[in-house]
Amino acid sequence: MTLTLTSDTNQQTLDLDRAHVFHSWSAQGTLKPLVLAGGLGTRVWDFEGTEYLDFSSQLVNVNIGHQHPAVIAAIKAQADQLTTIAPSTANLTRGEAARRITNLAPDGFNKVFFTNGGADANENAIRMARLHTGRDKVLSTYRSYHGNTGSAIVATGDWRRVPNEFARGHVHFFGPYLYRSDFWATTPAEEAERGLHHLERVIQAEGPASIAAILLESVPGTAGILVPPPGYLAGVRALCDRYGILLIFDEVMAGFGRTGRWFAFEGYDVVPDLITFAKGVNSGYVPAGGVIIPDAIAADFDETVFPGGLTYSGHPLAMASIVGALDAMADEGIVENAARIGREAIGPGLAELAEKHSLIGEVRGEGVFWAMELVADRATREPLPASAMGQIKAALVGRGLLPFVQDNRIHVVPPCTVTSDEVAEALAAYDAVFTTVQGGHA
Amino acid sequence: MTLTLTSDTNQQTLDLDRAHVFHSWSAQGTLKPLVLAGGLGTRVWDFEGTEYLDFSSQLVNVNIGHQHPAVIAAIKAQADQLTTIAPSTANLTRGEAARRITNLAPDGFNKVFFTNGGADANENAIRMARLHTGRDKVLSTYRSYHGNTGSAIVATGDWRRVPNEFARGHVHFFGPYLYRSDFWATTPAEEAERGLHHLERVIQAEGPASIAAILLESVPGTAGILVPPPGYLAGVRALCDRYGILLIFDEVMAGFGRTGRWFAFEGYDVVPDLITFAKGVNSGYVPAGGVIIPDAIAADFDETVFPGGLTYSGHPLAMASIVGALDAMADEGIVENAARIGREAIGPGLAELAEKHSLIGEVRGEGVFWAMELVADRATREPLPASAMGQIKAALVGRGLLPFVQDNRIHVVPPCTVTSDEVAEALAAYDAVFTTVQGGHA
Repeated sequence: MTLTLTSDTNQQTLDLDRAHVFHSWSAQGTLKPLVLAGGLGTRVWDFEGTEYLDFSSQLVNVNIGHQHPAVIAAIKAQADQLTTIAPSTANLTRGEAARRITNLAPDGFNKVFFTNGGADANENAIRMARLHTGRDKVLSTYRSYHGNTGSAIVATGDWRRVPNEFARGHVHFFGPYLYRSDFWATTPAEEAERGLHHLERVIQAEGPASIAAILLESVPGTAGILVPPPGYLAGVRALCDRYGILLIFDEVMAGFGRTGRWFAFEGYDVVPDLITFAKGVNSGYVPAGGVIIPDAIAADFDETVFPGGLTYSGHPLAMASIVGALDAMADEGIVENAARIGREAIGPGLAELAEKHSLIGEVRGEGVFWAMELVADRATREPLPASAMGQIKAALVGRGLLPFVQDNRIHVVPPCTVTSDEVAEALAAYDAVFTTVQGGHA
Repeated sequence: MTLTLTSDTNQQTLDLDRAHVFHSWSAQGTLKPLVLAGGLGTRVWDFEGTEYLDFSSQLVNVNIGHQHPAVIAAIKAQADQLTTIAPSTANLTRGEAARRITNLAPDGFNKVFFTNGGADANENAIRMARLHTGRDKVLSTYRSYHGNTGSAIVATGDWRRVPNEFARGHVHFFGPYLYRSDFWATTPAEEAERGLHHLERVIQAEGPASIAAILLESVPGTAGILVPPPGYLAGVRALCDRYGILLIFDEVMAGFGRTGRWFAFEGYDVVPDLITFAKGVNSGYVPAGGVIIPDAIAADFDETVFPGGLTYSGHPLAMASIVGALDAMADEGIVENAARIGREAIGPGLAELAEKHSLIGEVRGEGVFWAMELVADRATREPLPASAMGQIKAALVGRGLLPFVQDNRIHVVPPCTVTSDEVAEALAAYDAVFTTVQGGHA
């Protein structure tokens, strides 16, 4: 434990924050953000020594845990060497990061286009798909999140706008989610089959020749960790092949260990046409993301200018953190740990909780990527109301657990380095809080 | 000089790059990127000890020079403390960065929303302007660049898409550019007056009540360092006030010292409604950008959720680099140096070059933000052809100068820390290369 107290205080931090910091996805007036000053592994702490067990991985990005010494060392060494350099140059650390990522990817994926995060990774994958196919529409599910950008290139006036005026033609469909099926399905097989039928009807009705890509989170994350039913992703691949549509897997949250595999899609025997990533690739130690590109699509831009880019593409400090993180994850068996912990500790533990607490409607997941769906009524599956979710969140934080709470769900998403003792500690906290709430509820 | 040679080689770096790195805004097939391994101040070097004088500041972002020790130290200290934390928390370094930025901004600008770079800074300023006004259209100039993102939030399926389905209504107009006037103007006053008339006609024809914002680079950068003629920006401000339109200044390239002022707009006695920044705020040592928000617009989101965000908003490592860079720039008078060097060295030096070389059609700029417009014919102002520009670029690099070449222009954009000796060295290189080309040309 490297908890060191300084003369800085929680109050000072909170005051500065409320005076000057505008927060993401929030109403600003009533915010009282939790002060966090340091961390190590699965723990974070404030200036006064209050510790929390981080079962959120922040925004499901700290796959390698907080302050992993090998990644910190890589960042500091690169900081001493060269922090920043233009994307147009050749930089050794950038090449090393790209080599490691392509080595993990399926055969034929040999190039990486680096971005600052997941949103611009998806931006550039969509751009490539549209330019590769000469088609416009992109299909994605209603239960998805692919980033928050939608206008800078359209506001741009110079030539770089013209090949990019495609922020239209986005069509949404319903993905599989058996617990709240949009297809009146009652079994995983039925959910997959009907979901594929629905998707094919949308493709036909939109016009296959107008569709550039289907963009899917391999395992939809913020939407609820919606592990796809057997056969679904393979079925989507078959539809893409039938209609000449590219398949983009968004592995921003699901990738790099979260599911207990390097890429989530490896669990489904399906290879996409483009892969996007961010978060887990370097646990967000420096902002970074990117697109992994197969030879067939990279070749489109051998003679033709790729009309996309950004100042910090392949930023050396970010690249160093990728090299440090991927090497440590491989050396220390961190992805394997995530798989094992999911199988031996989180999965059985959550199943046991669900038997005990009727407010748990469903538990689903794999690796360190799990959701508990909380309901007011198991029969109707009516979501637990926001007020109760707020109470649960506050009670968990009060017990020293940082939860990831989304709508009526708790996502159980600790770092991939989490131990079974830490899982036991978290399960005990969920259990105690559910007991209180259930008591008040019953 | 801290040039240290390692066993790594230029060829190894180039091979890795060509095998695995996909580059911004390029055809990939024929790329032979310059290998760069280290730097200090205005100098960068490769693995074999070849040095270059960086008069590009890479992508016009290294305002504080390469590897400034105070910024490197700040990054390393934060790396030891806490590299990453979610935007929903309160973090002291983030508060300190926001306080420094708002202290530099005009009165009433008290909040900062942090992003990963300039594109998503503009994304969020546009979002705020549209939500504040309830209007849709955004006007910007044809000669502009505001970032490369345009579809991720529209591809997103969940509720976060719905308040953001506005990647439309982008209207472009002509900005002032006397040397190649779109208004048949012959004096700066005429260019300003006619440019304002044109803009007002576009506003009227589009319908003022449909226009949320006018988005302008205070001094358009990549478009040619188009220093606005006297009265133009004040005139735009007056049009915005008359029609209830918000004025967004994009200070991504022009801000934080580049013009010899903290903000470029300070030279024009005009205050915008929103300010976007990136690059110079931390010289790109860690990817970062943001929006500076006045109280009147921040208040819109006191009770209402701001529908925008990103995982790395207010990233601690990026925040530490902002604190380190802004403190060093203030302590060392770096912005003042940029102003003085522009006035005493670059301005007079480029004027002298222009007298000597008829291929220089115009020189314009301020601070460390200058353009030389190269022409085949001074009378017709016909741009120097791309082949000649390519030769000039190669010859400059051959002489150890990294130039910023864009279309038929050389942008003279060294770090704000540049010395008059370094300017003299660069001027001598331009002079020698122009003499050769002019010789071949005449």
